[in-house]
Amino acid sequence: MNDVPGATSSSGVVVHLNDSDPAKHAAVLRNVSNLIDALEPETKIELVVHGPAISLLLPGSPHSETVRALQHRGLAVDACQNTLRGEHILPDRLIPDTVVVPSGIAHLVIRQREGWAYLHP
Amino acid sequence: MNDVPGATSSSGVVVHLNDSDPAKHAAVLRNVSNLIDALEPETKIELVVHGPAISLLLPGSPHSETVRALQHRGLAVDACQNTLRGEHILPDRLIPDTVVVPSGIAHLVIRQREGWAYLHP
Amino acid sequence: MNDVPGATSSSGVVVHLNDSDPAKHAAVLRNVSNLIDALEPETKIELVVHGPAISLLLPGSPHSETVRALQHRGLAVDACQNTLRGEHILPDRLIPDTVVVPSGIAHLVIRQREGWAYLHP
Repeated sequence: MNDVPGATSSSGVVVHLNDSDPAKHAAVLRNVSNLIDALEPETKIELVVHGPAISLLLPGSPHSETVRALQHRGLAVDACQNTLRGEHILPDRLIPDTVVVPSGIAHLVIRQREGWAYLHP
Repeated sequence: MNDVPGATSSSGVVVHLNDSDPAKHAAVLRNVSNLIDALEPETKIELVVHGPAISLLLPGSPHSETVRALQHRGLAVDACQNTLRGEHILPDRLIPDTVVVPSGIAHLVIRQREGWAYLHP
Repeated sequence: MNDVPGATSSSGVVVHLNDSDPAKHAAVLRNVSNLIDALEPETKIELVVHGPAISLLLPGSPHSETVRALQHRGLAVDACQNTLRGEHILPDRLIPDTVVVPSGIAHLVIRQREGWAYLHP
């Protein structure tokens, strides 16, 4: 796919998660796992978590082990600072290696401008 | 970001809204507000409303004041003509300054072809 | 729109469907029908079905006639092999002319890299 104009095999993918439902979290994490399996190893994949989905990254999340395992396979996990502020959540309560971005929703735009694909499963 | 091929800092963003739930409307309007805060002032942002989401733009919508305030901050609001026709809604019942587009779903494609980012929160 | 950099009137559209709800299926198929009506005849439109949405393509789906009619109007329908394997579904049970792609979620990325627009109604 290297000859596609405006895209290379190393273009990234942003995955949008803003749902509070743990069953939805599980489905999206399965999707991310399938993405990692299917795309080239150098493809950057970022899961952008904002709004009520922030529960995925907090203590007590039923999926924290799965998130950690995906991080070890290369997934970057971003949390929205606007959400953290609004919910009075300190960043050090989040799953380790989470990156805090100023605005989750704006980050999804910035990545698309950089040529990344967008998915909202 | 002006050196990203095919994108400039003034590329726009289309936001897709087709849900009837007023709580979802409130969340999406918060997202739009955060986008306006986070992106460059010249960034065009369009909220494309179709299907059951059209209630957001009708008299009795609990969020009409919020929509008006976002319009004053630069948000463009589009309503889908297919939806208006299917629901027998006259355009003059919509929140002022709403732009009627022939097809909301096609408009989201046209904007992406023009290099705009797409979000469906 | 042929003068938009990086896009042509023949760029395609991928439509993402991963919801199990037949009412949602009906709404998305209406959206696809409106897309076909609104965009240029040469525009490629692909409906990518994965996860619990696979029921749309199985015997007993209340919308199989609608899917067939849209296929006759040019819609391509893709089913996710990961989903078929996980649900123990043989491809020959799917609506005729469905194309099986290795990973539905990755296919949505591949098409965006090729310059296609993405919609998740």
